[in-house]
Amino acid sequence: AIALLVILGVCSLITMSVILLTPAGSDTKLTVEDLFKPEFVAHDPEAKWINDSEVIYRNRDGHVIKFNILTNETEIVLTNTTFVNFNVAKYSVSPDLKYVLFAYDVKQTFLSSYTDCSKQQCYCYLMLFFREVWELDPPEVLNSILQYAAWGVQGQQLIYIFENNIYYQSDVKSNSLRLTSSGKEGVIFNGIADWLYEEEILQSHIAHWWSPDGERLAFLVLNDTLVPNMALPRFTGASYPKGKQYPYPKAGQPNPTVKLYVVNLYGPTHTQELTPPDSLKLREHYVAMVNWISKTKTTVRWINRAQNVSILTVCETTTGACVKRHEEASELWLSKQNQEPVFSRDGSIFFLTVPVKQGGRGEFHHIAMFTTQFRADQNEVRHLTSGNWEVTKILAYDESNDNIYFLSTEGSPRRRQLFSVKTVGLFPRHCLTCELNKAHCLFFNAEISPNDKHIILHCKGKLSELNAELAKFSLICYSKVVANVYFLCSDLPLKISYPPDFSESRHYGLLLIVDGSPGGQAVSDRFVLDWDSVLVSSDNVIVARLDGRGSGFLGQRVLHEVHRRLGTVEVQDQITAVEYMLTFPYIDRTRIGVFGRGYGAYITLMMLKSTDSLFKCSVAMSPVTDWKLYASAFSERYLGMPLRDDSRYQVRLLTASLRLAISLLTSNVHFQHTAELIRNLVKVGANYSMQLYPDEGHFLSQRSRQHLFASLTNFYRECLREEILPLPDDDEEEEEE
Amino acid sequence: AIALLVILGVCSLITMSVILLTPAGSDTKLTVEDLFKPEFVAHDPEAKWINDSEVIYRNRDGHVIKFNILTNETEIVLTNTTFVNFNVAKYSVSPDLKYVLFAYDVKQTFLSSYTDCSKQQCYCYLMLFFREVWELDPPEVLNSILQYAAWGVQGQQLIYIFENNIYYQSDVKSNSLRLTSSGKEGVIFNGIADWLYEEEILQSHIAHWWSPDGERLAFLVLNDTLVPNMALPRFTGASYPKGKQYPYPKAGQPNPTVKLYVVNLYGPTHTQELTPPDSLKLREHYVAMVNWISKTKTTVRWINRAQNVSILTVCETTTGACVKRHEEASELWLSKQNQEPVFSRDGSIFFLTVPVKQGGRGEFHHIAMFTTQFRADQNEVRHLTSGNWEVTKILAYDESNDNIYFLSTEGSPRRRQLFSVKTVGLFPRHCLTCELNKAHCLFFNAEISPNDKHIILHCKGKLSELNAELAKFSLICYSKVVANVYFLCSDLPLKISYPPDFSESRHYGLLLIVDGSPGGQAVSDRFVLDWDSVLVSSDNVIVARLDGRGSGFLGQRVLHEVHRRLGTVEVQDQITAVEYMLTFPYIDRTRIGVFGRGYGAYITLMMLKSTDSLFKCSVAMSPVTDWKLYASAFSERYLGMPLRDDSRYQVRLLTASLRLAISLLTSNVHFQHTAELIRNLVKVGANYSMQLYPDEGHFLSQRSRQHLFASLTNFYRECLREEILPLPDDDEEEEEE
Repeated sequence: AIALLVILGVCSLITMSVILLTPAGSDTKLTVEDLFKPEFVAHDPEAKWINDSEVIYRNRDGHVIKFNILTNETEIVLTNTTFVNFNVAKYSVSPDLKYVLFAYDVKQTFLSSYTDCSKQQCYCYLMLFFREVWELDPPEVLNSILQYAAWGVQGQQLIYIFENNIYYQSDVKSNSLRLTSSGKEGVIFNGIADWLYEEEILQSHIAHWWSPDGERLAFLVLNDTLVPNMALPRFTGASYPKGKQYPYPKAGQPNPTVKLYVVNLYGPTHTQELTPPDSLKLREHYVAMVNWISKTKTTVRWINRAQNVSILTVCETTTGACVKRHEEASELWLSKQNQEPVFSRDGSIFFLTVPVKQGGRGEFHHIAMFTTQFRADQNEVRHLTSGNWEVTKILAYDESNDNIYFLSTEGSPRRRQLFSVKTVGLFPRHCLTCELNKAHCLFFNAEISPNDKHIILHCKGKLSELNAELAKFSLICYSKVVANVYFLCSDLPLKISYPPDFSESRHYGLLLIVDGSPGGQAVSDRFVLDWDSVLVSSDNVIVARLDGRGSGFLGQRVLHEVHRRLGTVEVQDQITAVEYMLTFPYIDRTRIGVFGRGYGAYITLMMLKSTDSLFKCSVAMSPVTDWKLYASAFSERYLGMPLRDDSRYQVRLLTASLRLAISLLTSNVHFQHTAELIRNLVKVGANYSMQLYPDEGHFLSQRSRQHLFASLTNFYRECLREEILPLPDDDEEEEEE
Repeated sequence: AIALLVILGVCSLITMSVILLTPAGSDTKLTVEDLFKPEFVAHDPEAKWINDSEVIYRNRDGHVIKFNILTNETEIVLTNTTFVNFNVAKYSVSPDLKYVLFAYDVKQTFLSSYTDCSKQQCYCYLMLFFREVWELDPPEVLNSILQYAAWGVQGQQLIYIFENNIYYQSDVKSNSLRLTSSGKEGVIFNGIADWLYEEEILQSHIAHWWSPDGERLAFLVLNDTLVPNMALPRFTGASYPKGKQYPYPKAGQPNPTVKLYVVNLYGPTHTQELTPPDSLKLREHYVAMVNWISKTKTTVRWINRAQNVSILTVCETTTGACVKRHEEASELWLSKQNQEPVFSRDGSIFFLTVPVKQGGRGEFHHIAMFTTQFRADQNEVRHLTSGNWEVTKILAYDESNDNIYFLSTEGSPRRRQLFSVKTVGLFPRHCLTCELNKAHCLFFNAEISPNDKHIILHCKGKLSELNAELAKFSLICYSKVVANVYFLCSDLPLKISYPPDFSESRHYGLLLIVDGSPGGQAVSDRFVLDWDSVLVSSDNVIVARLDGRGSGFLGQRVLHEVHRRLGTVEVQDQITAVEYMLTFPYIDRTRIGVFGRGYGAYITLMMLKSTDSLFKCSVAMSPVTDWKLYASAFSERYLGMPLRDDSRYQVRLLTASLRLAISLLTSNVHFQHTAELIRNLVKVGANYSMQLYPDEGHFLSQRSRQHLFASLTNFYRECLREEILPLPDDDEEEEEE
């Protein structure tokens, strides 16, 4: 008895993209302007379950639709004109479907000195009930800029965060209750993440979690008192522009301290701290995951600062007592720190993906079923899946049918398909999406309904059809590169995009796009359309991406190869890939370009350092050039705490051949890195050029993105185009008349 | 009876430069590296009178020499090894010749947060007496970084400034006396200039003046409490780099307030304020000049904020009373605000250059003799000189011989020659340097001895010989451009540098170098050797400079043409000059480049805005892009106080064709200007490139200068070189094999 699959309009939207991407005439070439046309942007309906039979999503016209999957009825909840009238950036519908919360008049936070949500945008909120509108403001503060606001899980429960304190309303018309008072700009954060937690630990600025019945709220209190401040420069927009200061712990610097509390919202307010495990109580640690498993119990993952010991506890929120249920340790670092375990209703069984050795291929993440025995932390462990592939996400445990639903890379690391596995017997496993008649989709995301009855499938890549449809536009081909002699078992996936009228008898320029952030994946069947597609489609450039060692979804061995040696093996792999492609007769070895952003720009710089004149042109965008200047949680995870004169941290990027540095003024990779790079380039007398996008945050404005895309395509077009050589001429002197 | 002229070794040093500049073989071409070779750098001996017959200077070997002009004896006061051993940046010999004060271990101030001397370097000082060395430190502060230290005018008088307060020692071994206590970092400045006074008012960071007998010290107290702070960003060199904040009044913003005090140093210390003239007492004003005219009297120039009324007073420093001696007013702005009047010993007569109408050619600065009549502020005025040329500096009044010595542009605005004029009779005038046998120097500076007996002449340009010597290296030619129809009388000077083997039958690229700051002069006979010389010498580029309207030394009419319209007429003039040169048959109109720095970059951007595709390549280095963001004293002088939406201030630099922006992180033209420019370029989707010299102050390090020079020459070399066109080919398709 498998759950009924609801394939919503969602999927058809991707199909629509495919059709539109096929140019009208077969000779039409893709331009940078095309990329910004609405019809070229993949629409995300952001479909959500509101109960076991109803879904809310936004259609391509901009209307918000309620869809009943049992009756097939649809209803427009909100029209697109409402969005336009209020200049809405985000919306959410209240649990009782009576109100809508709008984020409008979006202000980037570093513009206002009194908000703290680091790189996130801040919103003002208002509520809409038919045509009645209220602005959501803290008591006695008009036109305040809230850091966060959202519905709870019941009725009209509302929560918002202002000046780093949490406020609660039981319904839209009730008075607001201030749940915390310790909040202090840039110092104490209640229920909202500081920069480090947002970027590196939780991967979200939300640092609070509702209990399933809405009676309790768990939240983090982050204390950044000892964390040094970094300045985010600001140059434009005012006579005397002021930079923004925010706590940013660099490698080896003091981290924020963390405490986890639960407040009960019904009856007299009471706040209870959940106690960390004894082994971490007096040591620096992170709280990486919080998840409610019943009305009063949460599961919490605590990790030491070195990120090689992780303790999963179950906490009784009424008393604050936490009991260890599982511990993981690694000689390297622990990946998947945010992973939420899936518990049975009574809490006696839980499922988690853990690294499991697969013969000679090293460890891969697979589903383990933990069953409590005599003591809470002594589990019987059973492995439900195995193989040279990874389980990427456990979706749900359907107890009545003994089924686990999950996504995995089985078949190909490029793909994500939905599977079920029985928790009994020989653990038989089925792919639920591999054979779907209509879709032939290779890359799914899935959201399961509250009672595990239905699943929304979101197709994010439909290459089987795409290949045919896009034939005129571009050919994508997958290949493999044998990384290195001492690393025999793994072939590294390489994705090569060929121009539409590719011919093996011609010569082409090659652009290598480097990503390579540990655990990342550049080669997948997920659909992407980016500035490099323009080069492929219109400029006869071949574009390649390699997932080298350090990449995710290829097993732990590949991932862990970069441990304590960032910027070494991945660099070798990228170079190996280029050398491999140089053996293709149609690649012109005088026209090779390379591009990287962030971590990829770091790899790019390291590649330039270790190759002589392999690359004709190179761009490093927002490069990291010194790991000591980068976030503690990231640098220490892969390199350990920095020692004095730590050679792993020391990067000497005296790169003589960088052609273009591009800088964004982001809170993540600071301009400081680029400045240090440039100082070195000046020192060695290297020629370089630079572009800066001043006062742009992490997310570039559309105008800046368009400028950036045009700059990049122009740059590589110029560099990689076939030179028409002048006829040989012995007289090299200027012409004389 | 004219004063004996001492033409020191000084002059021969320039001659030496000339010889060295001539390349060894006539085919040798000048390179960027050459410019940094010691033998290519013009040596400034910094010769100073120590009494009426002795001069101290530093010779090319680095020894400090005392030279007696009567006996012709020389003595080495300090050897060059001393300089090397102490890493000396500056030196000065005590008035009694017994001690030397050294500035060593130079630290750029924005590196240290607790010093205030804005863009100037800070020094530690030590004293050397044969081999005894003391470090100069404020009492009870070890290893302090002083902002300033210098000898007084008698014996071993010493003054130094620390934490914005003045300290005094009567001799090297006496205790130091703190003369002020109000000093406060970045707020109250005693005896030292804040940014505005240093850069725009005094043109020096020294804001104190010794009385001739060393018994009194006049000093300014600048109060910057209300002046907004500007941040000077800093990106490199530390984990958490901190920018420097300093008071910087922009146009229309609160200015520092100024008070002038005199302290007597002999006997009980007493500090007396000198009172401003009644008309300025309650209005914002500047103190632009302070000069002692006797042991107890000073002359002071007070200027209103609008800089169109200037009052010259004589102050009795024992009482603080100031009496008005002369007032100037202008409907435009007053130039030469720092000019020191030359007084007779009894104070009854003084000399000043003032604008005098010269028929139809407008006003030129000439020497006026003011003789006090019945009331102090009622003078009889007699004009000693006249003509279509300018007196640039009055050097001295030799009362016993009724002679005034001065420098002027008589003969050519490009030149500076030494003249004398009689203050009696028909004011006969002689040129003292025009016919000098040995020199044939066209551009002199002069320093007169204490009792007006002798003059040190410093030849700064010897083109008559230079032209011949440099013939193989480059040809310099002067031309004139008729500026505009409505501006009939003036031809604007144009300087064109031709490559060594120039031939009219060939075609050349042209680079226009734009300066154009009001009152400046780019076309003169002063010797310069800069990066553009490399392009002329080695890359067959013709380089041109024009002094357009707004330039100095061409009379007030030319200067005042830019009043309230910066960036208009000078832009037209520069374009007119290019169009004029396009009529030369040997200029290739497809290869025209333009370069400007600071104000010149502003003009460059305005030129790009108003020409379509005249320029193939352009560089704006540290451009000013918005006068509202620039220093109050500068912007308001030429544009008036900014009004709301002031169109004169509004600069819309949506320049689509800028090729390269270069930025230094200076305290003068802030990076903010470049950032605003780039934001506009991104907005309009313009392609541009950029170079940044991070953490460099106003003065670039030699390494950075070398990088900059190499970048600039490479950039223009690439852009302006003759393209060898491929043979015409109908088949524009990529070659097929």
